[in-house]
Amino acid sequence: MSSVDEQLSIIKRGCDELLVEAELAERIATGRQLRVKLGMDPTAPDLHLGHTVVLNKLRQFQDLGHHVQFLIGDFTGMIGDPTGKNTTRPPLSREQIQDNARTYREQVFKILDPERTEILFNSEWSDKLGAAGMIRVASTYTVARMLERDDFGKRFRASQPIAIHEFLYPLMQGYDSVAMKCDIELGGTDQKFNLLVGRELQKHFGQRPQCILTMPLLEGLDGVNKMSKSLGNYVGIDEPPGEIFGKLMSISDELMWRYIELLSFESLQTIARWRREVADGRNPRDVKAGFAREIVARFHDPAAARHAEEEFEARFRQGAMPEDMAEVNVAAGNQPVPVAQVLKASGLTASTSEALRMIEQGGVRIDGERVADKSLKLDPGCTVVLQVGKRKFARVTLT
Amino acid sequence: MSSVDEQLSIIKRGCDELLVEAELAERIATGRQLRVKLGMDPTAPDLHLGHTVVLNKLRQFQDLGHHVQFLIGDFTGMIGDPTGKNTTRPPLSREQIQDNARTYREQVFKILDPERTEILFNSEWSDKLGAAGMIRVASTYTVARMLERDDFGKRFRASQPIAIHEFLYPLMQGYDSVAMKCDIELGGTDQKFNLLVGRELQKHFGQRPQCILTMPLLEGLDGVNKMSKSLGNYVGIDEPPGEIFGKLMSISDELMWRYIELLSFESLQTIARWRREVADGRNPRDVKAGFAREIVARFHDPAAARHAEEEFEARFRQGAMPEDMAEVNVAAGNQPVPVAQVLKASGLTASTSEALRMIEQGGVRIDGERVADKSLKLDPGCTVVLQVGKRKFARVTLT
Repeated sequence: MSSVDEQLSIIKRGCDELLVEAELAERIATGRQLRVKLGMDPTAPDLHLGHTVVLNKLRQFQDLGHHVQFLIGDFTGMIGDPTGKNTTRPPLSREQIQDNARTYREQVFKILDPERTEILFNSEWSDKLGAAGMIRVASTYTVARMLERDDFGKRFRASQPIAIHEFLYPLMQGYDSVAMKCDIELGGTDQKFNLLVGRELQKHFGQRPQCILTMPLLEGLDGVNKMSKSLGNYVGIDEPPGEIFGKLMSISDELMWRYIELLSFESLQTIARWRREVADGRNPRDVKAGFAREIVARFHDPAAARHAEEEFEARFRQGAMPEDMAEVNVAAGNQPVPVAQVLKASGLTASTSEALRMIEQGGVRIDGERVADKSLKLDPGCTVVLQVGKRKFARVTLT
Repeated sequence: MSSVDEQLSIIKRGCDELLVEAELAERIATGRQLRVKLGMDPTAPDLHLGHTVVLNKLRQFQDLGHHVQFLIGDFTGMIGDPTGKNTTRPPLSREQIQDNARTYREQVFKILDPERTEILFNSEWSDKLGAAGMIRVASTYTVARMLERDDFGKRFRASQPIAIHEFLYPLMQGYDSVAMKCDIELGGTDQKFNLLVGRELQKHFGQRPQCILTMPLLEGLDGVNKMSKSLGNYVGIDEPPGEIFGKLMSISDELMWRYIELLSFESLQTIARWRREVADGRNPRDVKAGFAREIVARFHDPAAARHAEEEFEARFRQGAMPEDMAEVNVAAGNQPVPVAQVLKASGLTASTSEALRMIEQGGVRIDGERVADKSLKLDPGCTVVLQVGKRKFARVTLT
């Protein structure tokens, strides 16, 4: 294993917060294999690059010799949303959860080392708690402290209803850390409160409280909202090589550095060198292509990455996209927008009828590909390069 | 069975609130035997007259032909106070609960008809709920609505801690009504919120919501605080006949009517006649003695009641207690107070040393009985008649 300082510098890379660093240093110094927890919701098994930020961090822990406990929250998954109001949280059957877990496993093992990954299901200990155990767990926390959680506090002050079982979920999640005897738990910045509950519960149950490490939420391709499937601004890790490559090439030169920081496995030294080179005049496009290749290779293989780049370059040359082009935001609301409307709104055509005519004549391209279907719609949140004729280009984001 | 109106007038006697009267009338009108619930905490099996207010109401339901479900809250009893802060709520073992239940049974069957009483334990269905069921029950209520409960609201506004499991207890109590399919639940006025939770939960679980009937909390012998063992202002139903008789004779003429309303089984007509008679000059002491006999006879037998009265009268003649005497409050704090101090504070002696001398000489009586022990202490909350020599009397309440 590396020295304590080396380990800490790797662990802290890109992270938002590490609490408490001195405690983690002590644990690392023992030379013991640490138990590193990540909890995942079993409802949505399709991972995108946003999810992989924290998975990459787990992988770094593994490379440092530590033990990863990948927790699938099947206990609450099988309950779903008991109020029935949240249709995105239907109760899942044990079979559905097993299916989702299988998909998860396949996906996370593109990043994690299976040998050093333990997959756990929290129903194992949560069911055993029983109603009485649940009451005991609930007794460890006060209403006022629970309302300190940002979203609870906001809803409470705005007189929006909070059902009482919502207070139980963070507690159950905290109890997972007790059952798993975690040394450190990882999560997105939005999970900080819940991770701290784990710390408290471990203290209550006589364990040394876990450290917590929060990772930033990755922005989507639009560079504005957090990456999310429902916003359409995502790169799924199961997408074909050409899709991943093309989507990553569409991000802005600024967002590129953020993606590299959170997603690349290159060393901090290498990334610093790239930054210097770009500052000295290197085309950022080259760095972006290198990064896109790394990501495609990770989820497919190096040959697929090379091939994706070649295809992209061919389309690029054919389309002769300029290096600089206008960046345009088009307000989409929540609905997909017909491409002809987008062309007009972005100023590439003078009217929708001109846009439709140009499509008929084969003069419109999206990300270098000719548009054949006049009724094609673009999803809110997506970012594409639109081209009309040979010379008119714009990088359009539907907001 | 009596008519709906007759039943309602009996049911409403002395009650604080009946919700919803029209709904109860409908149920009575069906002629069906109603399921009437009373929940009891299994920690303190010593019943006093305060408890019997609501038991008397149950008895009236039984006399009207209805079915009483006497619920022992063993589920929460076995949990106790999980925070460990409330030492008056230690977790009880199943054996202790069974013992307490036996004591309860013996005591309540002095009032209830065993034939029409079903004794239930809520662990039967609460244990089966499991942690997942508990979450489902918790999902039926919001945090804001729970904070509408008086004591929660006050504590919350005063920034006093409320542990989250405290929110679960009213829900579990409400779920009892679901499991028991209650038509009506009885309780003290301080239970109104909890009884209403039962109503809500039954609606949620597709049952017709129970009616609720709250009974006033009986004042203790001091006429100020609610009757409670810890305040010492109580009459236990297991006390000897002479004790019960003497304690009841010590209450003020005003409080007497309150006791009669809530504790006597005499008809409303009879009680109205007594009031007229006293207004016309009858000595209220006679009414009080009649009432005291009724209560002693209920918990012992008529012969014991007669005997208690005779003994009391004999002491009374011997001590020659005056009809009118000073009513004195002595501030006791939370500690028992030496009788000599009470004598001085109430003005019956000029000093504590005089008081001690009078005790030595056999010149001090409490409730007609000579005090032999100079170190005797009086409990806070108690009301006694103190006598020094032949002529000095005071009815003293330790507040």
